[in-house]
Amino acid sequence: MHSFITSLKWKPGTEEADLACDGKPTLAITPPPAFGGKADCWSPEDLLVGAVESCLLLTALYFVGKLKIRLNAYRSRAEGTMAKTPNGLRFTGMTVTVTATLASPDDVPKMQQAIAQAEKFCPVSNAVNYPVKVVLETVTV
Amino acid sequence: MHSFITSLKWKPGTEEADLACDGKPTLAITPPPAFGGKADCWSPEDLLVGAVESCLLLTALYFVGKLKIRLNAYRSRAEGTMAKTPNGLRFTGMTVTVTATLASPDDVPKMQQAIAQAEKFCPVSNAVNYPVKVVLETVTV
Repeated sequence: MHSFITSLKWKPGTEEADLACDGKPTLAITPPPAFGGKADCWSPEDLLVGAVESCLLLTALYFVGKLKIRLNAYRSRAEGTMAKTPNGLRFTGMTVTVTATLASPDDVPKMQQAIAQAEKFCPVSNAVNYPVKVVLETVTV
Repeated sequence: MHSFITSLKWKPGTEEADLACDGKPTLAITPPPAFGGKADCWSPEDLLVGAVESCLLLTALYFVGKLKIRLNAYRSRAEGTMAKTPNGLRFTGMTVTVTATLASPDDVPKMQQAIAQAEKFCPVSNAVNYPVKVVLETVTV
């Protein structure tokens, strides 16, 4: 079993808190600007989207190694959406658009396979209850 | 509808990536140390746990205001657990232990109510598919 621990300290009289994780940079957290927070601080919603996006990359890298894919670059952009429901605001979905730069067109189907495996095994995207769509765009150099 | 966007750039040849969110500090992300990552970098798993923990606070603050609770301090500690399953690693649960410092014992039941409402309405804790347990400890000064 693995365990992940964070700790939070509210700044009284504000809507800001410090989010800490042992030995790592502390993050100032506020609500999203649309709900009165600061534009230069991470919101919990941003963190959730970034957690899924980054876990997909790290899981994909495992399969990139296993399938011996010549991956020269990997970038992604993730967008999560939230809508009002009778039970309050709820995440409704997320799309991660991956741009992978490959050494050869031969690696394209293997990269598709690595992404499919990442979607299946990524522990963070499998921890959310809304659909996560991954779109793979490949560039060969 | 609200939208949250992050972007990720892998550092080729490593298991590290930069996670960006417009106008906010960029975070270096690696796997957890148990999976070969760096102890001084946030992992996707840490971000997920911190997202739930911080969203619970921000949602609770809304009800703290509504219920006119005299809250002097709020700290929490969150622990998420992940275990191996036939489908790979999966989050199995999370506990958030909140310590709230209140101006008066009269505020204790109201704070319990604020936390219960936060559990019900927090969009991030409601976006995960594993149980999130919140334990409230109150201190009155």
